[in-house]
Amino acid sequence: MRESRYGIGVDVALPYEQAVERASEALKKEGFGVLTTIDVRQTMKQKLDREFRKYTILGACNPPLAYRALEAELEIGLLLPCNVIVYETGPAASVVSAIAPILAMGMVGGNPSLKDVAREAEARLRRALDNLESIGQTAGA
Amino acid sequence: MRESRYGIGVDVALPYEQAVERASEALKKEGFGVLTTIDVRQTMKQKLDREFRKYTILGACNPPLAYRALEAELEIGLLLPCNVIVYETGPAASVVSAIAPILAMGMVGGNPSLKDVAREAEARLRRALDNLESIGQTAGA
Repeated sequence: MRESRYGIGVDVALPYEQAVERASEALKKEGFGVLTTIDVRQTMKQKLDREFRKYTILGACNPPLAYRALEAELEIGLLLPCNVIVYETGPAASVVSAIAPILAMGMVGGNPSLKDVAREAEARLRRALDNLESIGQTAGA
Repeated sequence: MRESRYGIGVDVALPYEQAVERASEALKKEGFGVLTTIDVRQTMKQKLDREFRKYTILGACNPPLAYRALEAELEIGLLLPCNVIVYETGPAASVVSAIAPILAMGMVGGNPSLKDVAREAEARLRRALDNLESIGQTAGA
């Protein structure tokens, strides 16, 4: 798994469309529903008439965790849902990355209840990506 | 305008439903379309059968700025769109808050093109909230 300053990501040996589908399934297993989907390529084409690679932003929400986060800090909706992006890097190669909640919510400061929620969300997102990575490797093997 | 560690917000003297509508209009004037809407109250009711205050998360996107951000850093979709939340605080009182892109993208580190985009996005979001604050005051007067 790759770690960036604000996200965690995996390469999957799957075509983009399958990667989007598998990402949603992997998230579901960890209790995250996909509440929003932004097709970045389509949005750029429609709004700016510009070409962009295949790229989707999924808004993933684990309702019990979201509820706990909002109870701990009402304004935390500014950092919800947890974004997961999927983009094409080749005909049978995609990247799936998720926001790293511990870092993102690190901006929020010292609320301990929120830190607990961020830790749990991050553990679940990491498991979802680990799961995807193994699927991708099998498919590519 | 209120400043938090990761957002900027205003109190508006408007019922929640009107505040949501006016927030979308104010964003539109600054070039932000609302790409996604999460009705938090409804989601909590449906998924957890729990009551929550009236609360909406709007995913606001200024396409030329989003395009520049994605060109500067492909993974920045993890921090897009810009969240704007609206929630009820009384029968004719609501809060509208926006993510502060300079802080949020501050996580990203030293990419100068991204910093320019964050500055422009933040200036536009601040103008949208200023505009809303004045509408709210007029309506409440």
